[in-house]
Order: sequence, then C-alpha cells, then structure tokens
Amino acid sequence: MVRMLPKHYGCPTEFTLQLLGGKWKTIILCYLKEGPQRYGELRAYMPRLSDKVLTERLQELASSGLIARSAARGSAATSYRLTSRGEELRSVLTAIYQWGDSHAAAFGVKCDNPLRAGRQKMRK
Amino acid sequence: MVRMLPKHYGCPTEFTLQLLGGKWKTIILCYLKEGPQRYGELRAYMPRLSDKVLTERLQELASSGLIARSAARGSAATSYRLTSRGEELRSVLTAIYQWGDSHAAAFGVKCDNPLRAGRQKMRK
Repeated sequence: MVRMLPKHYGCPTEFTLQLLGGKWKTIILCYLKEGPQRYGELRAYMPRLSDKVLTERLQELASSGLIARSAARGSAATSYRLTSRGEELRSVLTAIYQWGDSHAAAFGVKCDNPLRAGRQKMRK
Repeated sequence: MVRMLPKHYGCPTEFTLQLLGGKWKTIILCYLKEGPQRYGELRAYMPRLSDKVLTERLQELASSGLIARSAARGSAATSYRLTSRGEELRSVLTAIYQWGDSHAAAFGVKCDNPLRAGRQKMRK
C-alpha cells in the first residue's frame, strides 16, 4: 500500500523495486501492458498463484495507482488495466520480458508464453 | 546459484525476475553498469546491506554469469564488473532506475543518488 511505503530510499532503483514489490506484481503488470484483462483471464495466466494472493496483489497495485478496475464493456465482469502511471512502466516491463525471452535457452530453462499462445490460438 | 534455478517458468518475465532475485542483486547490477567497482565502493553505496549479504549476492551474481571478479589495475584490491551477459541487462537496469528517478516525487519519497553525488564531488 502506498501509505506504508518508506519515504526515503538509497537510490531510485530501490524505490522502483519496492513499488513493484516482488515477482507477482511485475508479472501482473506485464500481462496488463498487453491490454485490459478480466480477473479470470489473469487467473488463467498465473495458475500457480492463489486467488488470495492475486486479489491482494491487484489491490496493492491499485493502491499504488499503477492499475485501475473498470467494468468491461457490455458485461458485468470487472477488468483491470494500466493507469497512465502504470503505462510509464512499459519500458521496464518490456525490457524484463525481452531479456528473459532472449536468454532462457542459454540457461537451459523453458518459459511458457500464455499471451503468445493465446494469440496463436485466436489466429487458427 | 544457477544450478538451483527451476527449469521451467510460467513466462519470460518470471525467469528474469527469478534470476535477479529480489532487490539487492538488481541494485548491485545498477551500480556495476556504471563501470567496475571495488568491494569497498559497493559497500559504501549500500550502507544498509550487511557484509554477509553483499558477499552472498555477489557470489550468486557471479554464479549466474552476470558479473565477474577481477584484480584492479595496479592494486591488490578485487573489483567487480558486468560480464557481456550482464551488460545485456543494461536496458532493464536503466529503465528501472529512470522510472524511480522520474516518479519518486509524485509518491512523496526521496531517493539518494550515491553515484551522481560521487561524480559531483569529483568535479568540484
């Protein structure tokens, strides 16, 4: 929560990382940079994340002013989107994603890619 | 350590974040992107970090192939520098730093800037 943030950091990097606060918030933001997503869609992208943790992380991101909730057009379902402040993290999010995508093979690791898989499925 | 990394991730972002592994490793890399630094210099930049944790984080970064140790020219002191694999994280590190630097004031927080302060001191 914003009100619980320390007011003084050793460097700007430390502040950004405090706000992103661990892995899941950054991953959620990465999915939202592709466009608004419903709760159920986010849930499906991160199957290892519990409902409790996903809900908490979404609340924290909204409190920080990085995302906002809105009713999806023509539907009762709520969706989440980046705010303009969150949009300004786009270069951070893109750089983190691209580095992982480029270097995974060199480390002998495999990364799923739920968004890319979703787009390929839609094209078929 | 590289050998302890999981081999499968939900997305490329998750892999990058796993490798960066929390706040201090990313902050160390941010200082090293400015050029090689001795242990004592890194120590001074991060006064809230204990010797034990700094040493561990440096070892982990070296194990991941992101930094390397080398003897400083004309000195017995060891310095640390980014490897070419670490250099490829530069866009990630720069984006994280710049976002923090641009947005701290909007959140009412103050960030020190040890490297900028050091450069200004040298100019005087």
